[in-house]
Parts: sequence; structure tokens; C-alpha cells
Amino acid sequence: MSLKLRRLDTHASDFKVALRALLAFQADEDEAIERAVADILADVKHRGDAAVLDYTKRFDRLEAAHLSALEIDATQLEHFLLGLEPKPRAALEAAARRIRAYHEKQKIESGSHSWQYVEADGTVLGQQVLPLERVGIYVPGGKAAYPSSVLMNALAAQVAGVREIMMVVPTPDGVQNPLVMAAAHLSGVSRIWTIGGAQAIAALAYGTETVPAVDKIVGPGNAYVAAAKRRVFGTVGIDMIAGPSEILILCDGTTDPNWVALDLFSQAEHDELAQAILLCPQAEFIEQVAQAMNRLLAGLPRQAVIKQSLEKRGALIKVRDMAEACSLANEIAPEHLEISALEPRRWLPQIRHAGAIFLGPYSSESLGDYCAGPNHVLPTARTARFSSPLGVYDFIKRSSLIEVSEQGAQTLGRIAAELAEGEGLQAHAQSARGRIR
Amino acid sequence: MSLKLRRLDTHASDFKVALRALLAFQADEDEAIERAVADILADVKHRGDAAVLDYTKRFDRLEAAHLSALEIDATQLEHFLLGLEPKPRAALEAAARRIRAYHEKQKIESGSHSWQYVEADGTVLGQQVLPLERVGIYVPGGKAAYPSSVLMNALAAQVAGVREIMMVVPTPDGVQNPLVMAAAHLSGVSRIWTIGGAQAIAALAYGTETVPAVDKIVGPGNAYVAAAKRRVFGTVGIDMIAGPSEILILCDGTTDPNWVALDLFSQAEHDELAQAILLCPQAEFIEQVAQAMNRLLAGLPRQAVIKQSLEKRGALIKVRDMAEACSLANEIAPEHLEISALEPRRWLPQIRHAGAIFLGPYSSESLGDYCAGPNHVLPTARTARFSSPLGVYDFIKRSSLIEVSEQGAQTLGRIAAELAEGEGLQAHAQSARGRIR
Repeated sequence: MSLKLRRLDTHASDFKVALRALLAFQADEDEAIERAVADILADVKHRGDAAVLDYTKRFDRLEAAHLSALEIDATQLEHFLLGLEPKPRAALEAAARRIRAYHEKQKIESGSHSWQYVEADGTVLGQQVLPLERVGIYVPGGKAAYPSSVLMNALAAQVAGVREIMMVVPTPDGVQNPLVMAAAHLSGVSRIWTIGGAQAIAALAYGTETVPAVDKIVGPGNAYVAAAKRRVFGTVGIDMIAGPSEILILCDGTTDPNWVALDLFSQAEHDELAQAILLCPQAEFIEQVAQAMNRLLAGLPRQAVIKQSLEKRGALIKVRDMAEACSLANEIAPEHLEISALEPRRWLPQIRHAGAIFLGPYSSESLGDYCAGPNHVLPTARTARFSSPLGVYDFIKRSSLIEVSEQGAQTLGRIAAELAEGEGLQAHAQSARGRIR
Repeated sequence: MSLKLRRLDTHASDFKVALRALLAFQADEDEAIERAVADILADVKHRGDAAVLDYTKRFDRLEAAHLSALEIDATQLEHFLLGLEPKPRAALEAAARRIRAYHEKQKIESGSHSWQYVEADGTVLGQQVLPLERVGIYVPGGKAAYPSSVLMNALAAQVAGVREIMMVVPTPDGVQNPLVMAAAHLSGVSRIWTIGGAQAIAALAYGTETVPAVDKIVGPGNAYVAAAKRRVFGTVGIDMIAGPSEILILCDGTTDPNWVALDLFSQAEHDELAQAILLCPQAEFIEQVAQAMNRLLAGLPRQAVIKQSLEKRGALIKVRDMAEACSLANEIAPEHLEISALEPRRWLPQIRHAGAIFLGPYSSESLGDYCAGPNHVLPTARTARFSSPLGVYDFIKRSSLIEVSEQGAQTLGRIAAELAEGEGLQAHAQSARGRIR
């Protein structure tokens, strides 16, 4: 099987057009899915447990007399961990430790503490910062059941201080994934129900007799889950709706071409819509990477997916120099950016938009996906221009604190009244003036 | 005109039902608006400036040969400020100073700095924090033209470090609001176009020949603007779509009843859907507040709006004690919460959900609306359970930094490969193992 790889060159007159076509991705809204999801949400909102049980029976072929029978309790969870082979167990525990450590650091650095200050006249201003109370984590079942996603989502919430972490995970035909359950145990998940789809999102958002309503829902899912999350947004908070995964590798030609090839593959193997792009100033090196890709592809079980993803959405792009590569990277604003170069820190100040930045030849995206520590839930589809990796900051919320002293009210009252009158809001003005002696 | 005020008592057996009915608010999605907005967005996306000019002519009766003719330049802006009367000018400047000072403090406390740490094996992890590059601020025209909103939105962005702040404000029939323009000048707005509605949101989100595309759009607007923002979300970031404004006053009966009455009014005068609620353990005090309201209403120019808002959505609620009031406050999770009590700090630890908390009798909401310093853009409709006041943190974004050392890759590679194999992702595993010596 040989790869038909797209080659582009920034010198080409049609490069901008070709790049735009390459990056274009329109998530099509499916009317049938939208309607089905709207119906499921309304049904669960009204019938609660009974509706969730009906859909679980229909979609997952899983029957229960009561929703509580689909809950996995804490001791069962621990057994999943204890039942693992030593190697996967050690790896899962090591990953959990590292992810927790990174997020602990992030909690301190990102300002998750309350603060206040006193002004000369005694007025106190500040912000009270609290963790969210109850969070729901959606974990996909079936083929895309990733224990690493459980760790990333739940640990960020747990480190932020969220007390109640509720997880839902569909188990079609009742098949449970021990690694997923063990990961839930390691990351402090409070309760788990083996339910999924729009019905699980509805249960978390509205609450049922058995499932308590949460304040925010995070985690990836299929088109139904994404549509459901979008619809319950406002009733609860949600994380970003993720698009297809992306990697952009900036290479100065000094990295082992096999490594670069495998890093592109490790993105492409996610799914046919994933995007893997290489930017490099050296035509020769690009050729070596292409050869490595053709050589290495055969050994991979997911080669069909990789081939389709690379041929449909991948590209090897020859750039003028690394500076141009950085500028293109900002245009692309990729989810994952590898700066695979001798002096990666030289280029870092030129990078403005990327979900995660991997520096140097040893920092493969795969390490970040599992265990480096930073979160692998990252902004896709150019949203790195305005959004951030999932983090402890997504599980806290702030209230402003305003304690005006009697003296402060004299000054502030005059300012506020003047501005309120300018806006035609007389009750505001009188309320402010009322406090003036 | 006498007010028919809703009285509730937490002792009543039907209180929970009555409370739920009181708080219920369903923003109805208007199909006609949705369709109109979808058409306008698509049209501006394809025809750019020409489409914006057409809609501006149609909706605002404002004609121009080119969109650049609808831009107000920096020197014009300054003239608006210089042209103000001394009192409103001083008030506007004082408010801007205080809002800026608070947000400067917030910038430091909320962790808007980049950080990294080095592990024992030389691996470096961290986050790069940068301000958004270009932000669009929507400012409503006509009756709801609030200079204070310009200050709140633009100053938060400016303090965060956003270089390009683009403002759009419709000016029906070409009538410009000098206070709005002066506020824009004071808060570092870079460029202003006198356009509005869905067409302005489209111009900011997609860019046109004249208006550069932004990364995020913030600011309030009518139903068309809200629908447009919801639709461009993903292409750009947006702030929360605000529901009707709310105040909840917890009073222990020690505050001047006139002050409480005026604070309730100052919420109710915003619009007919605004919600103003008082919780108090003393029946007598509630009576005094009701009397004050009836007495004070007559003097207010917006009395019709106040009456409608209070009768439709307001309530005076007798509670058992202040502790019960706090617990109800958490259920209501109001946008504005006043703790109007002798010892407001005594109750603060019991408050978990509120957009802004005003402590003590001198802290009227009106002071916070204009000039105390904290942002007046706050979470409504119970979203304070999971979201925060607008702040500098809404105008920054983070990229994870991962720089794995050669030694680090030996340990991390083994963990990642083990987990990747567990997830059936062999390219990930090989990419990780490839770095192991």
C-alpha cells in the first residue's frame, strides 16, 4: 500500500488557495441527529429514569429494572484496578501521578485562589473563587473508549477541588472496559452510570430520580453526544465541542525522519478526518519523511485509517525557512504543534496560536497524549486563537466581591449617579444618591 | 399607581413550587429570527462590505458608498470626550480609572502569566499565556446604549493585553451617542464602525474587505445579535449570551427600607423581564420595604417598566432566618446578590453561587454597575453555578508547553507505549518507543 501524499510549496503561486482548501473543514449539522437528540432530551427531562432506561435498552441492548442497577459502586471500581496486569496498572498509575502533578502546578499558577484588597477609604474589592460543585464526565464506549481521556478530564476537575465527579459511560451489551473503570478509580470519580448517548447527557443536565443534575459536562462523544451537549449548554456549562484532531510538525530537518513519520501517523490513526501536516524548509528531508512513511505504514494495524486521513487531509509542505513555518503555524493555529528542531526555543517566541507546543525531537505528541502531564483535551479547528487546553481553570468559577464603606459610598455614589442619569436610569441614580449623606 | 407585589413565605407548603414558577424563564427561540440571522450571516460571509452596507441602509437608514465611510477614526473619538460637559466627563474618567485598577489587580491574581518548571530528568513542562490578538465589542445602539458597558468590555480586554479592540455600534439614522464614543476612547478601543445587528457580528466573525476578522466577540445585543453570536461561536469565541438581569437582596432588617426599595427598582427598571427578589426573616421589615416601594415608584420616569417587572417576576420572600436565605441564594444563583446586613461577612462563607456579591448596606448594585471596579458583565439565569464575571481571564488563552529531555523520553516512552497499546493505537506506541534508546 503506497501513500499518495499531498506536497505543497509556499513558493507556488496558488499556495494560499491550496492551504485554504486543505484547512477547510465544515462540520455539517445533521438535521436527523438534531431532531432525534431534541426528542431524547425532552423525553428524559419529563420521564427521568424511565426514559433513560428505555433508550439504554434500545441503543445499548442493556436492560435494567431500575437506573440504580446501572451504577457501578466504589468498591467495584477498585476491583477493576486491582484486577489489571502489573504493566498496564503501573503505566496508568504513573500517568495519573504525572497528570495530577502538572495540574496541581497549574492550579497554583493559574490563580485559583480568592483575593481582595482594601482601598484608602475602607472599600474592599476582590473575587471569591470556588470549585464547581458537581461535574459530569462523558466517556465514550466501544472502540473509542480511552482510559487516558478519563484521567485527563477527571483529574483536572479533581485537582480544581470538585467534590462530586459523576461519570457516564455507555457499555453496549453490558461490556465494561476495565482500563476505563480503573482510570475512573484513580482519578477520584465519585459515581459512575453505564449509560451513554444523548440520554446520558440529558440525565446529567436535568437530573433524574437517580442521577443528580450537574453544573458542567465535559468529555468527548459522537455526533449525538456533541449535539446534546450543545443543546444543554446554558442549563449547564460544557467544554468545547472538539473537531477532528490535528498535528502540525515544524521540522528544521535535524530530526530522525522515522520519528517525524511516526508522529504524523499517530495523529492520522485517530480517524479519517484527522489532520497531519509537516512544514519543513528542506526538500530532501521532506523526501526522507515520505519514504519513511511509505516504509513504516505496512506494519501498522490502523494503516487503512492512516492512509485515508493522510491522503484526504494531510500535507508535506516545503517552506522558505523556519520563520515562515512559524508564521504559517499561527495561521493554522493547530491543536498539537511540534517544533522538532535543534533549537526549538529559538522559534517559540514566534508561536502565538497552538493548543499544545511540543519542543525538541524527544517531545512526541504521543507522550503528551498519555503521560507528560499537561491535558490532552485541546482546542481544535483554529480555536487555539481564543481558547485553551482543558485545565483546572475550567472547573472553578468566580464571584466578584464589593464591600463599599460609608466613606466610599460618598465618592462612588456621585460618580454612579452621574453616569446612571446619562443612561436614563433614574432608579440607579437614586439608589446611589440615597447612600450619600 | 400601586404595586401588586408577590409575597412568599418559606413556611408555606407550596413554597418550593411557587419558587420554581417564579424562577422559571424560558428564552424562546424565535424561528423567524433564526432564519433571518442565518441569511444575513451567509450573505455577509459571501458579499462582505456590500452586504453590510445593504443591511445598514435597510435597518439603520444609514447610507454610505463604502464601509470605510462608517468608520470613526481616533481623532474623532477624542473629540467626543473633549466635547463632554465637565461632570459627565469626570464621572466617566473616574469610572474608567477604577475599572482599570480592579482589572489590573485581577490580571495579577488570576494568573495571566506564563509559567514552566523543570523535572529531575530535565523535562520542562508549563504553559504559555498570551492575550487574544483581536477582539470585537458589540455595543447596542438606540435606547440601550450604555457607555458603562463599553468601559466594562473594552477595559477588561485592554488590561488583558489585547492590542486590537474593534467596536461596532449601530447608529440608527446616523445619530451617535457622545458618551458611548467617549467611553470607547477612554478604554483603548482601536477602531469603530457604526454598524450593528447580525451584519456587524458577521463582519467581525468572518472579516470583510474593510473589517478584519476578530478572534472573539463580546458585548450585549438584541435577539438578532444574540442569535448571530450563537451561530458564529466556534469560528470565533463569544462571551455568555446574557439572560434578563437579576438581583437578589438578603436583608437582615437593619438596612434603610428606602435603600432596599431603590435597589430592587434599579434592577427592575432595566426591562420588563428583569427579576428583583428580596429575602428577609422579618415580616415587618418586608412591609416597610413594600410601603417604600409604593411611595418611591411615582417619582421614577421608568415606573411602567419597574411595575411590570416587579409584578411579573419580582417577589418579597419571608424566610426563617439568614441561614435559610443563604441556602435559597445558592439555589437561585443570582447575577447580583446583596447581603444587606449588619455583619455581611458572617454570611459570606455560606454563599456559593452568585455573579457579584455586594456586602453591607452601602454596597448598592448601582455602584457596582458603574464604578466600583469589578465588571458588570455577570452570569445570569443560574449560570453563576459554573461561570464567572467577564474578566481579563476571558481575553487570554494558554498553550501547553512540553519539552521532554532525552532521559525523560526513556521513562515517558514506556508509559505512553503501554497505554497506547491498551487503547489499540499502535502508531502512538511506536512513536513513543522510537525515542527509547
